[in-house]
Amino acid sequence: MLITHKPSTSLQPIQQSVCVNFNYDVYFTNGLFQLDNSLLAQVIAADGEITAKKVLAIVDGGLLKHQHGLLKQISVYADFYSDVINLSEPPIIIPGGEIVKNEPRFVEQIHQMIDAAGLCRHSYVLAIGGGALLDMVGYAAATAHRGIRLIRVPTTVLAQNDSGIGVKNGINAYGKKNFLGTFMPPYAVLNDFDFLTSLSDRDWRSGIAEAVKVALIKDADFFEFIMKSAEKLAARDMKAMEQLIYRCAQLHLAHIANSGDPFEKGSSRPLDFGHWAAHKLEDITYYKLRHGEAVAIGIALDSTYSYLTGLLSQSEWQKILGTLETLGFTLYLSALREQLHQPEHPHYLFRGLSEFREHLGGKLTITLLQGLGQKIEVNQVDISVYKQAILMLQDWELSHP
Amino acid sequence: MLITHKPSTSLQPIQQSVCVNFNYDVYFTNGLFQLDNSLLAQVIAADGEITAKKVLAIVDGGLLKHQHGLLKQISVYADFYSDVINLSEPPIIIPGGEIVKNEPRFVEQIHQMIDAAGLCRHSYVLAIGGGALLDMVGYAAATAHRGIRLIRVPTTVLAQNDSGIGVKNGINAYGKKNFLGTFMPPYAVLNDFDFLTSLSDRDWRSGIAEAVKVALIKDADFFEFIMKSAEKLAARDMKAMEQLIYRCAQLHLAHIANSGDPFEKGSSRPLDFGHWAAHKLEDITYYKLRHGEAVAIGIALDSTYSYLTGLLSQSEWQKILGTLETLGFTLYLSALREQLHQPEHPHYLFRGLSEFREHLGGKLTITLLQGLGQKIEVNQVDISVYKQAILMLQDWELSHP
Repeated sequence: MLITHKPSTSLQPIQQSVCVNFNYDVYFTNGLFQLDNSLLAQVIAADGEITAKKVLAIVDGGLLKHQHGLLKQISVYADFYSDVINLSEPPIIIPGGEIVKNEPRFVEQIHQMIDAAGLCRHSYVLAIGGGALLDMVGYAAATAHRGIRLIRVPTTVLAQNDSGIGVKNGINAYGKKNFLGTFMPPYAVLNDFDFLTSLSDRDWRSGIAEAVKVALIKDADFFEFIMKSAEKLAARDMKAMEQLIYRCAQLHLAHIANSGDPFEKGSSRPLDFGHWAAHKLEDITYYKLRHGEAVAIGIALDSTYSYLTGLLSQSEWQKILGTLETLGFTLYLSALREQLHQPEHPHYLFRGLSEFREHLGGKLTITLLQGLGQKIEVNQVDISVYKQAILMLQDWELSHP
Repeated sequence: MLITHKPSTSLQPIQQSVCVNFNYDVYFTNGLFQLDNSLLAQVIAADGEITAKKVLAIVDGGLLKHQHGLLKQISVYADFYSDVINLSEPPIIIPGGEIVKNEPRFVEQIHQMIDAAGLCRHSYVLAIGGGALLDMVGYAAATAHRGIRLIRVPTTVLAQNDSGIGVKNGINAYGKKNFLGTFMPPYAVLNDFDFLTSLSDRDWRSGIAEAVKVALIKDADFFEFIMKSAEKLAARDMKAMEQLIYRCAQLHLAHIANSGDPFEKGSSRPLDFGHWAAHKLEDITYYKLRHGEAVAIGIALDSTYSYLTGLLSQSEWQKILGTLETLGFTLYLSALREQLHQPEHPHYLFRGLSEFREHLGGKLTITLLQGLGQKIEVNQVDISVYKQAILMLQDWELSHP
């Protein structure tokens, strides 16, 4: 580039620097809507304003299959704490799962309700459900009046230790996952372990994948804990699960606070270890694969790649795959091979690399492992080695039926 | 509220604190797209990445009536600096004015183009136009991939000294101004004074109202400057206008940086002096009134209220109204009286107070004046005094034809 700028005015540029602080607490509790549990009321009362605050409650329809009395319980709770909580109308039921992120009408519905209820920036949207619902409701709340306070009540393992405690929201558009969304920290997060008891085995297990991920990139001791607790976790031991969620949330939150890039302006994204393939696998399987199930395969794939390129030892690699296996994850899908030699096909797995780069921005940055608890970032990968890794995962599954 | 919370788990809350820094420069120039002005290319090259960056340029259709060669000029500029700028397609023309904020299809159009062009978070959306277009494009850019870099090129007085340099974006929905939007600082702002020469007299004048506003609440010397320059400004003296824009931008940016509440989480909003009535007047007149024209009336109204309640002296009040008048503003509208005694009518002016409170959140906080350059905030107002103020503005207009 030719540098030919002649200053056309004597007015100096004004250098603007804005620092924005976001503070929110992540609580752990049981029986959130029992009348003798005043946590939610206290969180809402904590801003010191004296009048009852408008609250719009949105409940994941998937929950109600198991938690039959939940809607009634929320209304009774709001009545009991009516000096703090002004439930603007009965809780709204919205389907759970990826469908709420794929159809824009759900965000519109929330916007309409916020308008109709006359919520303001000091009112509350209370979102109760799994990660997809929290992502969608969070996007709606973040964009109404430029941001209404969002209290998240994550009800799955995945949401309690990962998506529900972070600073992102979003919906899918144009076939791209989270194409629309913002970075916006919640007002508070209330993790109620009781919700986990009614999860299906698949959902219980699925959320553990993100804990394995964060352990592998950040904390060898935590990986050791997961490895040793894998059988208990698979057998739905609640104490082990509480420990897992708490430590995973701690590591995740510390990363956001201390990475120096909480709103992801740079190219590095270590928390997305295993995710380039995971996002694509969800797409390829039309979301029949749960996010955590896809992440488990993504972790297995990137760990195998790390092993094949000499970054991980064989025993480390085996510990990772063995732990995922004990937890009950499937590490290979026939879909992994199907379009492996058709780069033009939209389901070609390695399109996930460029889609991942486009979504994150900047240059391709893939996180690999150079030890248990030790990540390393690379800016290019060898697809032929990845193809070999896929064959190894196929062999592994065949030999560990 | 009964405080009966029994800790149901021994796990302590995790207190999260996230600090996000946003830095952006506001530049002043002439001839932005002339080949010997490398400012834009330098701003894009400044992130240090070596490849040319994708840029999606969006141009306010209203501009093209006067700037016939602009589209061609942008393309030639991008070609000349092609080692830095990769214009993903020819500049897109979008209408200017409030219509782009009232119809959701424009945001959708920008999202589609961002998707089609494969922009990532390190790409650029270059928005060239008036405040309404910048608000709409800013919202689209802020929500695609959770935020694409936005370079604003404001082309009106109002956008160069106020809306185009701040941290907000938004569109209207459900009949509410800026119901949808986010707080998101731009990547950079490039103010090119040459665009101002082709403004209509109304648009030239309109933007001065925000400078009067910021002077009145923050800087007596600046108000003195505007008062003394009012005839020159009304006669389109460019040097006076450049000084006005620069000082107004400085004060505005300093407020955002130093208020301690850049994303407006609290109830105080001093920069909205005169705006509760202005927003409602735009609505009542179906946006026939320009924003700045409405702000001038809002300033006159709140200044008169300040005078009637003893906060301002008569001479201060007269200086304010006299300055607005010399600048060419009309300070009274028949619409101000029409629904003055019909609280149920949607056009009842004082509905503007509750709509203002709802949009900002928290408790009603209205900024008044207790001197030139000295604001004071109040949490309640006396509508009967406002009605008297309206009669005084009517008298003023009749006696200053």
